[in-house]
Amino acid sequence: MNCKKYPGTMDVRMNPVSPHIESLSRQLTSELAEVETRFTAELVSDVDCVNELVRHLERYRGKMLRPMLVFLAAQAAKPDQPIREEHRVIATTVELIHMASLVHDDILDEAELRRRGKTVNALRGNETAVMLGDYLFSHAYHLCSSLDSQPTARIIARAANTVCEGELLQLANRDNWSLDEETYMQIIHRKTAALVGVSCDLGARFADADPQMREDLKCYGELIGMAFQIADDVLDLTGDVATVGKSLGKDLEKGKLTLPLIRRMETAHRVEHQQLLDLLRADRLGNAERIAELVADSDAMDYTRRRAQRLVDQAKALVEALPDSPAKKAMDEVADRVIDRKF
Amino acid sequence: MNCKKYPGTMDVRMNPVSPHIESLSRQLTSELAEVETRFTAELVSDVDCVNELVRHLERYRGKMLRPMLVFLAAQAAKPDQPIREEHRVIATTVELIHMASLVHDDILDEAELRRRGKTVNALRGNETAVMLGDYLFSHAYHLCSSLDSQPTARIIARAANTVCEGELLQLANRDNWSLDEETYMQIIHRKTAALVGVSCDLGARFADADPQMREDLKCYGELIGMAFQIADDVLDLTGDVATVGKSLGKDLEKGKLTLPLIRRMETAHRVEHQQLLDLLRADRLGNAERIAELVADSDAMDYTRRRAQRLVDQAKALVEALPDSPAKKAMDEVADRVIDRKF
Repeated sequence: MNCKKYPGTMDVRMNPVSPHIESLSRQLTSELAEVETRFTAELVSDVDCVNELVRHLERYRGKMLRPMLVFLAAQAAKPDQPIREEHRVIATTVELIHMASLVHDDILDEAELRRRGKTVNALRGNETAVMLGDYLFSHAYHLCSSLDSQPTARIIARAANTVCEGELLQLANRDNWSLDEETYMQIIHRKTAALVGVSCDLGARFADADPQMREDLKCYGELIGMAFQIADDVLDLTGDVATVGKSLGKDLEKGKLTLPLIRRMETAHRVEHQQLLDLLRADRLGNAERIAELVADSDAMDYTRRRAQRLVDQAKALVEALPDSPAKKAMDEVADRVIDRKF
Repeated sequence: MNCKKYPGTMDVRMNPVSPHIESLSRQLTSELAEVETRFTAELVSDVDCVNELVRHLERYRGKMLRPMLVFLAAQAAKPDQPIREEHRVIATTVELIHMASLVHDDILDEAELRRRGKTVNALRGNETAVMLGDYLFSHAYHLCSSLDSQPTARIIARAANTVCEGELLQLANRDNWSLDEETYMQIIHRKTAALVGVSCDLGARFADADPQMREDLKCYGELIGMAFQIADDVLDLTGDVATVGKSLGKDLEKGKLTLPLIRRMETAHRVEHQQLLDLLRADRLGNAERIAELVADSDAMDYTRRRAQRLVDQAKALVEALPDSPAKKAMDEVADRVIDRKF
């Protein structure tokens, strides 16, 4: 199993700027710790080797954006209501699903294995990673079914369906150097944004938010999810290794065209376009640095930043319409932070 | 994706021997056709490439043992009650889960890829297979959540957890030529028998069977599930290619020790034991035929057959205790058929 720490996980620690925010911050820290506890408890097995493998998931742990949004959406919808048991269960469920997709994302296909020339690692590679991911998924549903809410289970399953569709659409467009922006947005909406949106939606649902507020919060989640993915894609292509802390060009290696390069290709003169195509076809990974330079030396980066910023602004506008509360302020901050990563 | 037709799927067509059986047979054929329809409908996506991939699942289609057992258990529990909507949903759900596990079983790890020297196939190999399997799983839960029964969802999710545990336990025992029979039984109980048991259990549940009857039918399912897996493992090691219709030695290639070989190793004299070990370590696949010969030329095959027969007999005894009905008779036949495959 290729166990690199998941890149680009959002650092969404909020800076306490007021007692209310500080109080919220403490509460969230406590709730997230509880999510971590339940996450671990859900995965305990009476099969020793399974427990051993689960321990290896440490490297995938992030800042729990999705669980945090469950709680924030609940509090932003109804600031005076306490977090409920359902919120904790849902928060843990979405994190399990997210973790499962990270594990499955790490599956290497034959071409990559051959290119990398890796030996079978101690965790027995792909097959174990597949089963471990499946284990996480089935436990997500197992946990989710402890709620007395079939509609919620349906919403969560639907979100998982959508993630799969996004990943399959992305796979189908491997090595498609003519990938258009519309399809790219479709891909990231499904594979990343949908689950973030559902986290907000369900947080609001179990705070008894009215339908409009639920819809707004769901939208907020989807918008920042898309912005986050765009920022992540930019970092992969042109980021600073020291900052990002992972090897770059992973998307290029996988034949994944992302927004900066899509834009560059779409707006390039015939000669430049051909130049880029030649670089990509000849040695996508070896030429990654050169390709990144050509992208940086164009309006493609500005375009991408503006695109992401617009999504964040739309998200913030939705939150702005909510009644004032520390959670509302926090969600406003979170929206800014999803793209504030040396972007 | 390595798309070989799934081997060893049970041929459980029943021979009509009486008008009642014939009537049941017709009813089952109709119900299974409905399951197929719902299976297809559940997987429809608005993403074209997803639909295209789903079409490739044709090659995995079997005889729908698990759906059939949902219906048979229901009818055996309450012969005068009609099949319900819940039965159809559950039957489709367990088939989706089964199909997903078949797709994921086909993921090849690095060692196998290198051994086989396969080129990337048209379906883009492992990553697509992972996502397609995930798509099937998430749709299983999506469908299951349409039932107004959280306990049922929990039972199904738990079964899926168990399948994963079985597969992981099996993976952890790769190349373990000292695998003992107890652990082997643990593996097959989890990875194969559990889901068959749950199919029977839920069929009975939604026929309002009393707890004892549910338990008996669940047990029946687990017992024939184990017997089926043992028969499948025997065929893989020593089967006739023409009969089985697939390449043999797949288990050996994966370093999987199964019951005939476990028994052979456990009862071998020191010299024979060393001989087998040497053959396995040197070239497990190349020596498969020789290894199979050594197994056949011993009491290991008889021992294995008796083991499987005992499980079948136990299953039949449980069904015998049910009130007479065509379904009861059918379940008795099914139990015989799981091991009646040139075994």
